[in-house]
Amino acid sequence: MSAIDALIANNARYAETFSGEAAGRPSLAVAVVACMDARMDVYALLGLAPGDAHVIRNAGGEVNEEVVRSLTISQHELGTTEVMLIHHTRCGMGTFTGKELKAELLAETGHRPHWATGAFTDVEADVRKSIAQVVKSPFLTHTRSVRGFVFDVENGRLHEVS
Amino acid sequence: MSAIDALIANNARYAETFSGEAAGRPSLAVAVVACMDARMDVYALLGLAPGDAHVIRNAGGEVNEEVVRSLTISQHELGTTEVMLIHHTRCGMGTFTGKELKAELLAETGHRPHWATGAFTDVEADVRKSIAQVVKSPFLTHTRSVRGFVFDVENGRLHEVS
Repeated sequence: MSAIDALIANNARYAETFSGEAAGRPSLAVAVVACMDARMDVYALLGLAPGDAHVIRNAGGEVNEEVVRSLTISQHELGTTEVMLIHHTRCGMGTFTGKELKAELLAETGHRPHWATGAFTDVEADVRKSIAQVVKSPFLTHTRSVRGFVFDVENGRLHEVS
Repeated sequence: MSAIDALIANNARYAETFSGEAAGRPSLAVAVVACMDARMDVYALLGLAPGDAHVIRNAGGEVNEEVVRSLTISQHELGTTEVMLIHHTRCGMGTFTGKELKAELLAETGHRPHWATGAFTDVEADVRKSIAQVVKSPFLTHTRSVRGFVFDVENGRLHEVS
């Protein structure tokens, strides 16, 4: 049995008590951008209920053009007005360099990615860079409340980056 | 008070009982790619615990080059071997066309995005397209178990796309 089969069985139990009452427009008008890290259960750590907020996630939680696409749709089509960025301590993105990863991929697959890997060394600097990417996008018109945080994977706390 | 302030207060309560014991490598070796839709609490609907799986999310849950970047890091650096794609019913991505959104953004901001919006009309076809994007990437070497689902926002159930 694959792990996915176990998750499907979990879903059948979840559906037994699912209310289905939430609307498509996020009720808190918040969009969260977070790292894909397995240790971050974003709904639980923010106390979100279904329907409250959009959640966008990728390796590192960095804001790049694809995240701008999602945030543009979130703000323009679905009414969000605040952006909350969440990186975290002990991120895997700090355990390799872009050069190293690209060299390994070339050696193993015969192809070298032309995309930037997003590897970084200073998590707070990466949060500030991500905030700047949101603020400078011409398509994101709600930038009054764009705030960045680091989640501590050891104690579960968010620390705001100023 | 902004909505984000309320979420920070929720986090302080969450941290009181946070165990901090999970490791960075996903224990189920699964990477989930899902839409950003607010109605999908991915950990709850799959019965995931912190540490179990990577979760990547964007507008539509589509697999594009940026998702391939995240999945490459997930597989190559952090050991995942299965990919679970989750789109959903009543998706906002079916409520506009790319042409319409680009025209509106140009009119409102003076800029026209050069990125594809990801709008679609047939959710199952979009899931199949996303599966194909994973399978064809040279950087994703674990493609034995790449499965796609549609989450029903009315009853909370996953339906597998074959």
